[in-house]
Amino acid sequence: MPLTKTSLPEVCQALLYPRSIALVGASDDAKKTGGRPQLFLRRSGYAGKVYPINPRRAEVQGEPAWPSLAALPEVPEHVFVLSPTDTVVDTVRECARLGVKLVTILASGFSESGAEGVERERQLQAIARDSGIRILGPSSLGVVNPRNGLVLTANAAFAEPDMPQGKVFVASHSGSMIGALVSRGKARGVGFAGLVSVGSEVDLSVGEICAATLDDPAIQGYILFLESLRHGDQLQAFAREAARRGKPVIAYKLGRSSAAAEMAATHTGALAGEDDIADAFLKDLGVARVEMLETLFEVFPLAQKIPARQSKARRVAVVTTTGGGAAMVVDQLGVRGITVQVPSEATIARLQAAQIPGSAGRVLDLTLAGTKYEVMMKALEILLDAAEFDMVIAVVGSSARFNPDLAVKPILDSAGHAKPLVTMLVPDAPQALAQLTQAGIPCFRTPESCADAIAAVFARREPGVPATAHMPAAGATRALSEAQAYELLDALQVPHAPAAVFELQTQQPGALPFAFPVVAKVCSEHIPHKTEVGGVVLGIQNAQELATAFSTLRSNLAQRAPGVPCSQVLVQPMRKGLTEVLVGYRIDPDAGPIIMLAAGGIWAEVLRDRSIRLAPVGLETARDMVAEVKMLQTVAGLRGKARGDLEALAQAIVNLSQLALRPDLGVAEAEVNPLMVLPEGEGVLAVDALVLKPL
Amino acid sequence: MPLTKTSLPEVCQALLYPRSIALVGASDDAKKTGGRPQLFLRRSGYAGKVYPINPRRAEVQGEPAWPSLAALPEVPEHVFVLSPTDTVVDTVRECARLGVKLVTILASGFSESGAEGVERERQLQAIARDSGIRILGPSSLGVVNPRNGLVLTANAAFAEPDMPQGKVFVASHSGSMIGALVSRGKARGVGFAGLVSVGSEVDLSVGEICAATLDDPAIQGYILFLESLRHGDQLQAFAREAARRGKPVIAYKLGRSSAAAEMAATHTGALAGEDDIADAFLKDLGVARVEMLETLFEVFPLAQKIPARQSKARRVAVVTTTGGGAAMVVDQLGVRGITVQVPSEATIARLQAAQIPGSAGRVLDLTLAGTKYEVMMKALEILLDAAEFDMVIAVVGSSARFNPDLAVKPILDSAGHAKPLVTMLVPDAPQALAQLTQAGIPCFRTPESCADAIAAVFARREPGVPATAHMPAAGATRALSEAQAYELLDALQVPHAPAAVFELQTQQPGALPFAFPVVAKVCSEHIPHKTEVGGVVLGIQNAQELATAFSTLRSNLAQRAPGVPCSQVLVQPMRKGLTEVLVGYRIDPDAGPIIMLAAGGIWAEVLRDRSIRLAPVGLETARDMVAEVKMLQTVAGLRGKARGDLEALAQAIVNLSQLALRPDLGVAEAEVNPLMVLPEGEGVLAVDALVLKPL
Repeated sequence: MPLTKTSLPEVCQALLYPRSIALVGASDDAKKTGGRPQLFLRRSGYAGKVYPINPRRAEVQGEPAWPSLAALPEVPEHVFVLSPTDTVVDTVRECARLGVKLVTILASGFSESGAEGVERERQLQAIARDSGIRILGPSSLGVVNPRNGLVLTANAAFAEPDMPQGKVFVASHSGSMIGALVSRGKARGVGFAGLVSVGSEVDLSVGEICAATLDDPAIQGYILFLESLRHGDQLQAFAREAARRGKPVIAYKLGRSSAAAEMAATHTGALAGEDDIADAFLKDLGVARVEMLETLFEVFPLAQKIPARQSKARRVAVVTTTGGGAAMVVDQLGVRGITVQVPSEATIARLQAAQIPGSAGRVLDLTLAGTKYEVMMKALEILLDAAEFDMVIAVVGSSARFNPDLAVKPILDSAGHAKPLVTMLVPDAPQALAQLTQAGIPCFRTPESCADAIAAVFARREPGVPATAHMPAAGATRALSEAQAYELLDALQVPHAPAAVFELQTQQPGALPFAFPVVAKVCSEHIPHKTEVGGVVLGIQNAQELATAFSTLRSNLAQRAPGVPCSQVLVQPMRKGLTEVLVGYRIDPDAGPIIMLAAGGIWAEVLRDRSIRLAPVGLETARDMVAEVKMLQTVAGLRGKARGDLEALAQAIVNLSQLALRPDLGVAEAEVNPLMVLPEGEGVLAVDALVLKPL
Repeated sequence: MPLTKTSLPEVCQALLYPRSIALVGASDDAKKTGGRPQLFLRRSGYAGKVYPINPRRAEVQGEPAWPSLAALPEVPEHVFVLSPTDTVVDTVRECARLGVKLVTILASGFSESGAEGVERERQLQAIARDSGIRILGPSSLGVVNPRNGLVLTANAAFAEPDMPQGKVFVASHSGSMIGALVSRGKARGVGFAGLVSVGSEVDLSVGEICAATLDDPAIQGYILFLESLRHGDQLQAFAREAARRGKPVIAYKLGRSSAAAEMAATHTGALAGEDDIADAFLKDLGVARVEMLETLFEVFPLAQKIPARQSKARRVAVVTTTGGGAAMVVDQLGVRGITVQVPSEATIARLQAAQIPGSAGRVLDLTLAGTKYEVMMKALEILLDAAEFDMVIAVVGSSARFNPDLAVKPILDSAGHAKPLVTMLVPDAPQALAQLTQAGIPCFRTPESCADAIAAVFARREPGVPATAHMPAAGATRALSEAQAYELLDALQVPHAPAAVFELQTQQPGALPFAFPVVAKVCSEHIPHKTEVGGVVLGIQNAQELATAFSTLRSNLAQRAPGVPCSQVLVQPMRKGLTEVLVGYRIDPDAGPIIMLAAGGIWAEVLRDRSIRLAPVGLETARDMVAEVKMLQTVAGLRGKARGDLEALAQAIVNLSQLALRPDLGVAEAEVNPLMVLPEGEGVLAVDALVLKPL
């Protein structure tokens, strides 16, 4: 059989618009998991062919059953395998033999369940690789397309009729969540353009599935429910293309808290907990990561209006008919670092000319003017036209529930303005909410989801230059010696302290190219952690102490690292900066090349005070990273303290991050720790570095 | 007229159960603000007498109008003044003359609006003081009691019929929010036992109003919507009494974000931003402060089940029918520092004996067992009985929407258990939610509000010993000299470095009672900030340098503080600790005496790394404070670093906080900064202190 790998357009077709579906292991009992897809498809009136396959029955749920896939009158486009785990591999092999494009597997019991399961998963991957068939799952609850009645799922939540349609496609690691999202969206008046339970992604990943649907004009955005970051390369390719096409991607990702618990380790990898890296990954690819479940249903229209490249335009105006309600929104925005902008004098003059009172403070509170259509309409016009604002938030009080004509209608009537107009409704006001949602106006039910959505949209970054360095296939690495590491830093133009290398056996080291005091360190690629073997002597004041230090190092090595090859000592001047930081580059197995800046020393461990980005980064991004590390405020001119050379630090970050574009250098990880930050104008200086290369 | 101050029971009666109400300035137009109370009272069929007062009309809204309060056939219990600002004082004076118990003022235009308004407010306070009448407002939108149809409010939101009743009384700084709370509560199936818009609290404060209702058996708990902390003494008295009676108090307080912005100043007062103090105040008084608006409607049953004295019992079990849903809850709990407890071996054995699969991990995931009544019932029984858990959270998936008999009914059937059982529903499931709410089972619609509620309930503390020190009437203070400050520390048993005091004019200081190196500091109550005048010389190595230092201090004072009285120099040995902290006591005008522990030096400013409590504190609380300051982890035995004497630090906090019980010492503020933390067993040592006393 020749290999004809199912193309992505074919995946989209078979996934969301299959002309024919086979249900392998279809149950006659519609209440059982294996009976649900047929029931749901029939109930929704799905127009495509549906073939129940059950070798032990002539009929399934009142329809003729087929004994096998081979017995069908055609090759089904999509096969949903509902049968038990131990039959799955054979069924998928049969699908591949017949030329099925896409097979979805419901069963669990693969790599998550011991050696046997791992072997089953390996077989599935081999079948996909050898035949070109694409696999969704295992552990997939299926796929739903509310636009054409494709309710191809075993999720009991889809027993319900009247599924609202929408413009956003959902891909979820959790199968049960697609049902919860539909019911919650329905309560919110929001539908979806499709939902897929991706299962354990042995073949098709979230990224590939979403990429497959990018050409579907009915799909205008994406919601990802992620349990972890997996198959990052495919997710990255999808997110970049979605950003290019202006189709917003929104993510809710579990794992915020495990990061908070990981506070013990020091190297770049462990310091950057999984969720921190995933967070940087998502934001750097223009994905709006929301922190609250309910925000998922409300953020899309806002994300659509503000593409990632405009996310730095964050000057927000607030107009309200209720002071207390607006204060909640302002407070929640403030908690997320978003400050409400004070109107300009020109804007205040325009408001006064329009006889709109309440223009004194940060928030335009119309309470005194009363809740009137004309007042709200004029206020919105003035704020939307004002050059000092990038977004206007209208916080509407009780009238939204009783009399939407007063303050909600002006919002609807202002929807045509190019500037984003956002609404938060303080009372429970389902009809106003429905009207606003219908009109595509971003509108929110709680101050927290309003602020969460705005913060998520602002936190996105326009995707930068893609890395070209990739994770080596094998995970094992070898270290460079410190001297070799400095050669790499030289190549990258990351400044380091001068260093002189001597033979360890030298009894009387000669003249140094720099002044005392100095530090002497054993220098060997086999001793990446020098202090652990007593391999560092600090504060050497003169030639005699230097000779003694060499002797100490020899003796320490003999005792604490006997037999470990080490022939060199590296001598450096003692340098002290205003503060010290860690700058680390590594290729993360999921996210790809990342660059991290962290507070140095014990603070890094205690406070997790750091900033992470996908590498490479440009100077502007590196400056953002510097601004995000709180400890660096101590050398940013606070209260007359000396300023550190933060511009040189940013440049060093940029330069180290270039490793992501240098696959030729073959570096898996490079950690400069510490990097001394010298006073402004004097630069930065690496005084130790650890570089790992693939074996 | 003799002074007969309306008692709190009379306030409660007149506020929530008035037998007669007068509406001064009642409008014939029911759509106008001044017409609404009459319309609402009539619509709700309020049984008490309602007298519209309008001297210009014979009838108001079809009822006979009265020309004045004096013309009424009786003295009304409660008068709602709806008339314009400039008539208010005279009306209130008339009320007082007639012997009205309670008058509510709608108008604004008092102390918030310039000198004239301040004078009006002063007059109101004088009337209240002289007559004993109690005043609600100004700027009060009124009061509502859904239990008897008392819709005595000008808030348009109450136009709606069918207000649900409940057990919780709401007091709100924001008048518009009481309407929003009712509509949102209604959507959630939650009603209230009463709502009051407290306005600007010129007389009756939130604390007094709530205290007045404590004897009302229909009121079982409180929700406070606070814009700021005002009249803290009354709020404190109420909260303590509510805690004593087991009536939970829940608060939503604005101002989280302004705290985040206040990062620039260094002394105890400025460092502890307003919201930080309010937060400590609320938690120390057993108030559950929620962070999300929606949590207000869901937290009461949980707060009722877990009194503040049990809030340290935080071992949580999670059982679920949906892995993804439970993961969201676990994640949100983790973000808030609440870790899900692993079941004990005995519990695992019981689960296995009951043939309940899924007992391996931290969460008991029943997915494999299927969603069945018997399974959920048995699982709940085992977890509720298990000694290692203080609370059980059941996270229910899609079945909650379609078939509540499967997993929701077992929860209802387990409600009798003494241990708190909490439910989070993953789909939109209004009926199940209503059933659970009806049964008084804490139940939540979102993982965030579920975790917010649990965290808020756990963060409460049982109220401790009340302070006896009070804010001096006048705000002005004078500083003690450092030598005098050390005498105070001696009295409080807060250790400080030894100090020798010399005359500033001394040319050759004699022998010191301690060794060099030493520091010499000018010592005068008129120079609280010594470094600003060059009044500190560090690192003095010998007697000659000491003499030079005295000369330097004389010359610096002459130049930089000419004429400022200063006759002494304080000499201390140079001491260095493993780290340094700030311990500050002060009497906050709103919260009363507080004690603060903060990271020392520049970190305090950059990171706001600190802990605040109401003073006095006991040793256990002081240890909690030490644990909350992250910087102190660096001396808590991390990775083999030296341990600091954190027990001695805790004792020093306890001792300084005793100022709250020593009104005789008359201290307004005492700040030990820095306090050196020495190695374990060696104690702590103040090396500077600033004490302020009222003038």
